[in-house]
Amino acid sequence: MINKRCVLNRPLAAGVPVADDFRVEPEEVAQPQPGEVLVRHRYLSLDPYQRAAIGGRHGGPGGPLGEGDMPGGETVGQVIESNQTSIPSGAWVRHAGGWQEFSVAAVDDVECLPESTLPPSVWLGALGMPGLTAWASVARLAEVQPGQTVLVSAAAGPVGATAGQLAREMGGRAVGIAGSDEKCAYLTGELGFEAAVNYKAPEFLSALAAVLPDGADVYHDNVGGQMLMDALGVLRPYGTVILCGLMSSYNDPAQRKDLYIGLPILKRAVLKGLVVYDFEAQRSEFVAQLQPLVERGAIKILEDCASGIESAGQQFCRLMRGENFGKALVEL
Amino acid sequence: MINKRCVLNRPLAAGVPVADDFRVEPEEVAQPQPGEVLVRHRYLSLDPYQRAAIGGRHGGPGGPLGEGDMPGGETVGQVIESNQTSIPSGAWVRHAGGWQEFSVAAVDDVECLPESTLPPSVWLGALGMPGLTAWASVARLAEVQPGQTVLVSAAAGPVGATAGQLAREMGGRAVGIAGSDEKCAYLTGELGFEAAVNYKAPEFLSALAAVLPDGADVYHDNVGGQMLMDALGVLRPYGTVILCGLMSSYNDPAQRKDLYIGLPILKRAVLKGLVVYDFEAQRSEFVAQLQPLVERGAIKILEDCASGIESAGQQFCRLMRGENFGKALVEL
Repeated sequence: MINKRCVLNRPLAAGVPVADDFRVEPEEVAQPQPGEVLVRHRYLSLDPYQRAAIGGRHGGPGGPLGEGDMPGGETVGQVIESNQTSIPSGAWVRHAGGWQEFSVAAVDDVECLPESTLPPSVWLGALGMPGLTAWASVARLAEVQPGQTVLVSAAAGPVGATAGQLAREMGGRAVGIAGSDEKCAYLTGELGFEAAVNYKAPEFLSALAAVLPDGADVYHDNVGGQMLMDALGVLRPYGTVILCGLMSSYNDPAQRKDLYIGLPILKRAVLKGLVVYDFEAQRSEFVAQLQPLVERGAIKILEDCASGIESAGQQFCRLMRGENFGKALVEL
Repeated sequence: MINKRCVLNRPLAAGVPVADDFRVEPEEVAQPQPGEVLVRHRYLSLDPYQRAAIGGRHGGPGGPLGEGDMPGGETVGQVIESNQTSIPSGAWVRHAGGWQEFSVAAVDDVECLPESTLPPSVWLGALGMPGLTAWASVARLAEVQPGQTVLVSAAAGPVGATAGQLAREMGGRAVGIAGSDEKCAYLTGELGFEAAVNYKAPEFLSALAAVLPDGADVYHDNVGGQMLMDALGVLRPYGTVILCGLMSSYNDPAQRKDLYIGLPILKRAVLKGLVVYDFEAQRSEFVAQLQPLVERGAIKILEDCASGIESAGQQFCRLMRGENFGKALVEL
């Protein structure tokens, strides 16, 4: 049986990756040892942090990936070979399977998907790491209160879309920042955001101020850089900022724009750094709160799904150009 | 009666001011109108924020000061002419009298000094705006707990020295950063800091790490720029940073170094902007807590006092070069 893996053609240079940075290689599927299972991946999650991880800038011991190395990434799939009664063959599981069709994993490293009528891909999006991130921000660190206004950047992505909808479910108002008029229309028309502003439009700053006449109580930042400073400009005094992502510099750290701290001082802002891995222990609470909301459609999911491992590189490039419309996935 | 005022010889250019940027001008002392008092200043407070205010960068409606303009500043002095029974002649008062020997002030704008055996200058330092700043940081925003380690920059200045000593009085440990070995020795030898590190020494970073083997729970930042990032490097995960001053760029905003927000994200830090004016309404609580500590010597005061309004410019230049040793004052 052949496993196809998507690997690097070369180390990624600074800048947005291109499709030719990746290639697909076949290999024989490995045999699971005792305590392991063989998983056939059905969905691969592509996430912006993977750009930093490929460049060796996402923390941890590893350096940048080189030619022939396979990027990591979460997957959902079905166990097709197992000696473990705890995870029988046919079980749906979520784990860090990587950019490939099959993987062998230790039983302790895979998690069976909860019972649900939802498509399994949701466990990579609104009920997966992006959703956990949004929940940690809105429900835990920002502790959004009824009546508060929550501003979210990268709002059409799975973190931002979930954060905004959850804020609204908690009694707040969601205002989104996204990169196209189409995304903005979707946020207000389908996802219940009160307003959305296209940051690529020339009148972005005045439009942002116009939709927030009383300012934002909370800003969930997926972006960093100038957008963080622009958002601080419309933060209410004593507002909260959740520092959660650095999309503005994942592709090219040299283009990084840092924060003038006079801005948070002037706003008496409270800034909180969020790393989603800290909230793994609270995943069951998160699922208990979010799964019913997703199942009854109160929190809608939006997926941008490519097909086949051969499309993984191109789909990742689209994500890094901000061209994805919803959670970036590859169906395998 | 002649009032001598210290005014600008020219608008301040970027960089550290020089004595020749200032001159002293005489004028006839004004007469107080009904509802006003005439105050003979005894001490003028010089503070780093005044550099930004002179440059028009401290918020508020005013632009940069020009030739002949007098900088603002807090003073303590004695009322020498009053028609108000609430503030009789002879009363000691604190108000924003400016860089001059006399001022006429509305009764509502001056505050009588509390009864105390302390020298009146203390109401410009440990019991004045710098002390209120330190209290707001340590007792209110950081809410220092017994056993916590509090790192303070510009620790030999009145904000830093008060913050460190108050943290120790609240059961914490104070570690200081200052600009000379002499200041560091004073912090540990006289003010009860557990350790102090000279940031101008070549081995600063390793020395800082060495005195904080378990990291700092709280960092009170008077400086910004690279020092903020260095301090984040020794912050414990989930630690608190109080953003309180920008000494690193008061002299020259173009030399500003901004914050790479990957650092607070990595540390899961909580950053809080502090503006002392917000805590004016809590001044009586602050005085009630700090005055007994200062009176019994648990919080020691250190003053760097020049004499005569003619010395104000030069004393301010020393402050902006970091050459002051304690609260910068001018006795008038």
